[in-house]
Amino acid sequence: MMTSDNPRGADNQQERPGFEQWVVGFVDGEGCFAISVVRNAVCRLGWQVQHEFSVTQAEPSRPALELLVEFFGVGRLIPNRRSDNHRTRLWRFSVKRRDDLLWVIVPFFEEHPLITAKRADFGRFCAVLQLMQERAHLTDTGLAAIAAVTEQMNRRQRSRFWNPQRPYANQLVPTRVEDMVLASWRHGDH
Amino acid sequence: MMTSDNPRGADNQQERPGFEQWVVGFVDGEGCFAISVVRNAVCRLGWQVQHEFSVTQAEPSRPALELLVEFFGVGRLIPNRRSDNHRTRLWRFSVKRRDDLLWVIVPFFEEHPLITAKRADFGRFCAVLQLMQERAHLTDTGLAAIAAVTEQMNRRQRSRFWNPQRPYANQLVPTRVEDMVLASWRHGDH
Repeated sequence: MMTSDNPRGADNQQERPGFEQWVVGFVDGEGCFAISVVRNAVCRLGWQVQHEFSVTQAEPSRPALELLVEFFGVGRLIPNRRSDNHRTRLWRFSVKRRDDLLWVIVPFFEEHPLITAKRADFGRFCAVLQLMQERAHLTDTGLAAIAAVTEQMNRRQRSRFWNPQRPYANQLVPTRVEDMVLASWRHGDH
Repeated sequence: MMTSDNPRGADNQQERPGFEQWVVGFVDGEGCFAISVVRNAVCRLGWQVQHEFSVTQAEPSRPALELLVEFFGVGRLIPNRRSDNHRTRLWRFSVKRRDDLLWVIVPFFEEHPLITAKRADFGRFCAVLQLMQERAHLTDTGLAAIAAVTEQMNRRQRSRFWNPQRPYANQLVPTRVEDMVLASWRHGDH
């Protein structure tokens, strides 16, 4: 019976047959396709659409995230804040650049489909990127369409921009209901 | 660009090349190898060693857990309590029978190694099963050895049997320190 307990045994893992499917399974478990629509006075309409593909792990599994950086050749590791009181540091493999998403991440998951409900989020994530390629985020109606798509995405937690328990307590909260819809989405938990 | 958002597109997924690696990646993300040592007056020493391999998902990703049942041919889905206030139901793919663990789950992950820090937990899980095969859990020294191994395993949360913040508030708390060690482990978060 194998009793090896070396968590850093990630060397050459990319060469294991079927490694692409390991990536799909890992992302089915821990991946996050997120769209946020946030206030940004510099943007034409006062709102910025942010897009991120990420996978988060605690420090002991950081080598697995480094494998993702090597495998995709885009993105980077960034330290993550914890919302719990756990002591272990968290790391996030993060891809934010739209070109990296469009030409690397999206084609990979089109060729190697996700299996869990994250597949639906991925589809909506693609739909938003597509709308942005058509410059929809620069028009009122396009921005509303993007907000409508993101509202259908699953959530792990409410955005820090909109807390339904205290909608007026946060200075970042927009005042119109439709603004709150735009800002309220953050991806989630399956 | 693919915009399919069918989360139930799990049909025939087992036939995708490299599906074993999808299972490994998914378990690297969401799997849990857990040993609990709990009070049980029926047992010879008053303690029972429980073992479980599990993968938990919310309702929308239940089909992915059903795939695991089909794939491994052991285990079952059971509804899971949530510790948060999320509304979506949780399901757990659970394998508890020692024979199923020894002859199905363990050989699979020996042949297809995990990549994250869960690999270390798996090694310790195997070590405990091996000790139990040698009937170590039926002797004081063996039980202490099992407790020592489980103490090294990673934790998501403290067991309901031992809360370090209120060690005397829980009627289930054993009174001796070594008893608390035995009861305090529950697997975890990477």
